Amino acid sequence: MKSYPKSLDRLIEELEKLPGIGTKTAERLAFHILKASTDEAMGLAYAVRDLKKNTCMCSRCCNIDESDPCWVCSAAGRETGVICVVEQTRDLLAVERSGSYKGLYHVLGGHISPLEGINPQDLTIAKLVDRITGDIAEVIIATNPNMEGDLTANHIADLLKGTGVKITRPARGLPPGSQVECVSRAILTDAIKGRQEIR
Amino acid sequence: MKSYPKSLDRLIEELEKLPGIGTKTAERLAFHILKASTDEAMGLAYAVRDLKKNTCMCSRCCNIDESDPCWVCSAAGRETGVICVVEQTRDLLAVERSGSYKGLYHVLGGHISPLEGINPQDLTIAKLVDRITGDIAEVIIATNPNMEGDLTANHIADLLKGTGVKITRPARGLPPGSQVECVSRAILTDAIKGRQEIR
Repeated sequence: MKSYPKSLDRLIEELEKLPGIGTKTAERLAFHILKASTDEAMGLAYAVRDLKKNTCMCSRCCNIDESDPCWVCSAAGRETGVICVVEQTRDLLAVERSGSYKGLYHVLGGHISPLEGINPQDLTIAKLVDRITGDIAEVIIATNPNMEGDLTANHIADLLKGTGVKITRPARGLPPGSQVECVSRAILTDAIKGRQEIR
Repeated sequence: MKSYPKSLDRLIEELEKLPGIGTKTAERLAFHILKASTDEAMGLAYAVRDLKKNTCMCSRCCNIDESDPCWVCSAAGRETGVICVVEQTRDLLAVERSGSYKGLYHVLGGHISPLEGINPQDLTIAKLVDRITGDIAEVIIATNPNMEGDLTANHIADLLKGTGVKITRPARGLPPGSQVECVSRAILTDAIKGRQEIR
């Protein structure tokens, strides 16, 4: 049975490898690219190529940027005594956008997950431990508030316990704008466990 | 406010141009490509490039293939007196997979849609009219059974009326495996309108 032309088949195969893209979506995208102008298609091809060519990992904090050290590590006026540990570069950007933090970062490159086969040595944890010198007063572990994030945070906290550095996690509880009757059991548990005295 | 590295931003922008891909999905895909090996990423980049480089439109039936004439037009043993008109190459393949047709095809490259600004001259209709010579006995207009497909079919039928060629459309009605109580009003209307005598 004849199927698509070979190069169309190959693109569909490549697109299917992307997360959340099934065969039908891959076909739809491939046909869109087929019908698009050569300029549009090559724009995508070049963007993929350049992403791999131009980006690198910061040798200090493992952030992804086009320069090393990255834009955070090379910025003037940041508090160099605090490190905020995040799973991904996109988490770093979210914290930055909040405007509530002016220290340094450390990007782990994911979370520990025995189920997915991701072990501590697959992350940049060893590099983080190396960064904890006398100059660092606090490490904020801002991994995601879920099972893998908590596991990762606990693992890192255990490793850093001996260093005397202050180890913290962002508060967790009711998100602003939520309703107590609607939020999940896990949120309420966190919120009640972490209750704060009104002064 | 600092955002992603420039080349990451550019890939996100390119991915957002694809149909059904919003900003969040584009970010997720771009980060996946960022974390993928260079081989994997370049596999995708090359597949996009090669698709545009290697495919062409059949000069006879406007099918997309890597050769001209395409694999259908150049195949031996097909019925050359019948043309099945479809909107897209993928429709052609669906008809092929059904195994119920052995004639030639004509790929329109879409459907007429005043709302989307697609006019008859944007499709390969003129080329289809040129193909109707004395050798062609029947034209099956297998556009999609929806408003745009019907509009396109009627337009083509009007153009071919003077040529004396037999013009048909695939039957429409209840899909095998469906239940009368569940199918839509449009399906039932088609099915009753097109009812067949039991002999």
